[in-house]
Amino acid sequence: MKKVKIGILGYGTVGAAVDKLIRKNHKEILEKEGLDLVIEKIADTNPRIKHSHLVRDAGKVIDDPEIDIIVETIGGESPAKSFVLQALRNGKHVVTSNKELIAKNMDELARTARKNGVSLLFEASVGGGIPIIAGIRDCLVANRIDEVYGIVNGTTNYILSQMEEFGKEFKDALKEAQQKGYAEADPRNDIEGYDAAFKAAILASEAFQVKVNWRDVYREGITRITQEDIGYANESGYAIKLVAIAKRHVDGKIEVRVHPALISMGLPLAYVSGAMNAIYIKADPVGEQMFYGQGAGGGPTASAVVADIISAARGQLPEAGGKTKAVIKDIADTKSRYYVRLAVPDKYGVLSKISKAFADEKVSVSNVIQRETTGTYATLIIILHEIEEKNLSAALKKIKQLHVVKSIDNVIRVGL
Amino acid sequence: MKKVKIGILGYGTVGAAVDKLIRKNHKEILEKEGLDLVIEKIADTNPRIKHSHLVRDAGKVIDDPEIDIIVETIGGESPAKSFVLQALRNGKHVVTSNKELIAKNMDELARTARKNGVSLLFEASVGGGIPIIAGIRDCLVANRIDEVYGIVNGTTNYILSQMEEFGKEFKDALKEAQQKGYAEADPRNDIEGYDAAFKAAILASEAFQVKVNWRDVYREGITRITQEDIGYANESGYAIKLVAIAKRHVDGKIEVRVHPALISMGLPLAYVSGAMNAIYIKADPVGEQMFYGQGAGGGPTASAVVADIISAARGQLPEAGGKTKAVIKDIADTKSRYYVRLAVPDKYGVLSKISKAFADEKVSVSNVIQRETTGTYATLIIILHEIEEKNLSAALKKIKQLHVVKSIDNVIRVGL
Repeated sequence: MKKVKIGILGYGTVGAAVDKLIRKNHKEILEKEGLDLVIEKIADTNPRIKHSHLVRDAGKVIDDPEIDIIVETIGGESPAKSFVLQALRNGKHVVTSNKELIAKNMDELARTARKNGVSLLFEASVGGGIPIIAGIRDCLVANRIDEVYGIVNGTTNYILSQMEEFGKEFKDALKEAQQKGYAEADPRNDIEGYDAAFKAAILASEAFQVKVNWRDVYREGITRITQEDIGYANESGYAIKLVAIAKRHVDGKIEVRVHPALISMGLPLAYVSGAMNAIYIKADPVGEQMFYGQGAGGGPTASAVVADIISAARGQLPEAGGKTKAVIKDIADTKSRYYVRLAVPDKYGVLSKISKAFADEKVSVSNVIQRETTGTYATLIIILHEIEEKNLSAALKKIKQLHVVKSIDNVIRVGL
Repeated sequence: MKKVKIGILGYGTVGAAVDKLIRKNHKEILEKEGLDLVIEKIADTNPRIKHSHLVRDAGKVIDDPEIDIIVETIGGESPAKSFVLQALRNGKHVVTSNKELIAKNMDELARTARKNGVSLLFEASVGGGIPIIAGIRDCLVANRIDEVYGIVNGTTNYILSQMEEFGKEFKDALKEAQQKGYAEADPRNDIEGYDAAFKAAILASEAFQVKVNWRDVYREGITRITQEDIGYANESGYAIKLVAIAKRHVDGKIEVRVHPALISMGLPLAYVSGAMNAIYIKADPVGEQMFYGQGAGGGPTASAVVADIISAARGQLPEAGGKTKAVIKDIADTKSRYYVRLAVPDKYGVLSKISKAFADEKVSVSNVIQRETTGTYATLIIILHEIEEKNLSAALKKIKQLHVVKSIDNVIRVGL
């Protein structure tokens, strides 16, 4: 039996769930793992929190020589970063659920952990309770990973699912997500794709063993997705999802992007609804794998935190990310299929002029939807075959100037 | 750096893939894990195999004092069992992909491993490259698992997918699966559900930490599924899949069964096609999780075997299964929804008599499909609400005797 003393920084939803889970499963973990997990101290500055082990000053936890493992569940970069650095320097393992902290500082934190011979573990930072980091590090240790992609933000997936299933407009679905606690009062971190970009950077770093700066992640949010887009996507056999995609190309370049995409309804990913997450890995020789589960919430996140605590206590010392800087593929050079929604006058010759403008840039049209209309303008939906982003941009620039086009109302990638 | 000497028993598809993968990734594993994996000897009796490390006599591998880890990829119970027992007694870790061996002998092998202070690892025995055993043992270590279910046999999933996508009848789809190497010349192990039952027993043992005898797994194969069933299922919004289901009830009883089931097309599981596998776990507090990937084949299976080799070399010593015998819930007491296909004369009053027979046994009808017909007999499809199996059996017994029923042509469970 080995006694393991734990300090928790931040007693919000996740911190409280970790405390509860460790107390609840204390006996089972002792029997199964021979580990006597003890919550020694909890730090939080919120005066409304009452807890027998609470201290107001995080330093009392970080600098306590009795404590072996620090759990950081404060979130955000400051003050979490200085606390975690100090804990690592004090020779304590750190387990965190903080994706912003890890995405922005993985290299510095990993180096500090290595120098002090301790673990930095962050399973809970991506996919909530989904064991995606363990999947990459341990289970697929014998593989070469070439792609990681999927749905990593529950808030936007919930909003898009509400829009699709109940015909709600974006702002109503967002308001509901806020009322239900899925979205924050200031929702930009989720709806503008920052949260997904942090996770994409972490996944790419782990999967390809390189340093990926989160600012190099190409990022689009979901604020421009309308009921009209969802309707046309559904009609063409697609759902719209906010996806994170990371690929390693044969030249070694890393492609990493976050944006809405039309996902074929022939794929399981199209049926990942509500606040669920699903992450695919393509690797050699294992082929395609997918991990699915709740991407957020106290319970699932605590499940991942406690699994990390047990790993650290067992003495496993995995190293985070890679040592060389990733060479990022420019978004202009990345390939995708595209959905384009245009408003056009309802008259002869429109489609042929638009098709010609695409063809001139070697952009090839796959599907077209055009409806009879009673108004002056009709909606035209064009789905394009795979092309490089720069060719699409060039074509769209020309199309915008055609007098037969009133406006290009939306452009969304198709596929993964 | 730690040198790890490996012996492989059985140089078929999986054994050869393990050999290849270890040679290919030797440098990466040395760098990442500090482990120098060396294939020391390979045993196979097939005279057509040529390999510089080959020996004909397995004993030369098992009894070689230089070898640390034995990889058993022979398959089947005999002679694999005696080889594995001898290896464990010789103080060697054993990694196996052999589900029949593990399902039939987990307790004896686990005890022998424990007594000799070595590991018995079998990630590759369920779900090919999908890390489901690691998921249960390590990643969800802080959870209480209540349900494990999903698609665990690629051969039957391939056959059912072919039937659904291309309108093939069972025997043609089976023939094709045999030609493509997905099914064996004697296909009973797959199509009668034995393979899935072995895996269900292993999953239930691991998830609930109890001893489950594979003979206690209720088992139905897919040989009675027709094009007609698939057509009516699709029309009602379902796909038909062979599923394995294991549940722990609040009274501690274990329900474990393998059979075809109608799966709602609103669930990702319905879109798991071809030879892919997908396994769900319901656990507290993590909620619902799903792991998806290739359930067979050399590459995926080798990926799992090598991950186990690395675990064993790291010195992790997980214990297989549980120590107490599972109390199995009788299939008659299990609850499910059902699809029933009947042939009935095309005349008045048939449906009301059948409905009454169901109602008399408190079986409640959810959906009915009846078509106009030109022949003497019509097909009647009835989908029932959830009931205990014994009530269904009683109702069907009565219905069989009604003069308005020519025959009950199929009964398939609905849902999970």
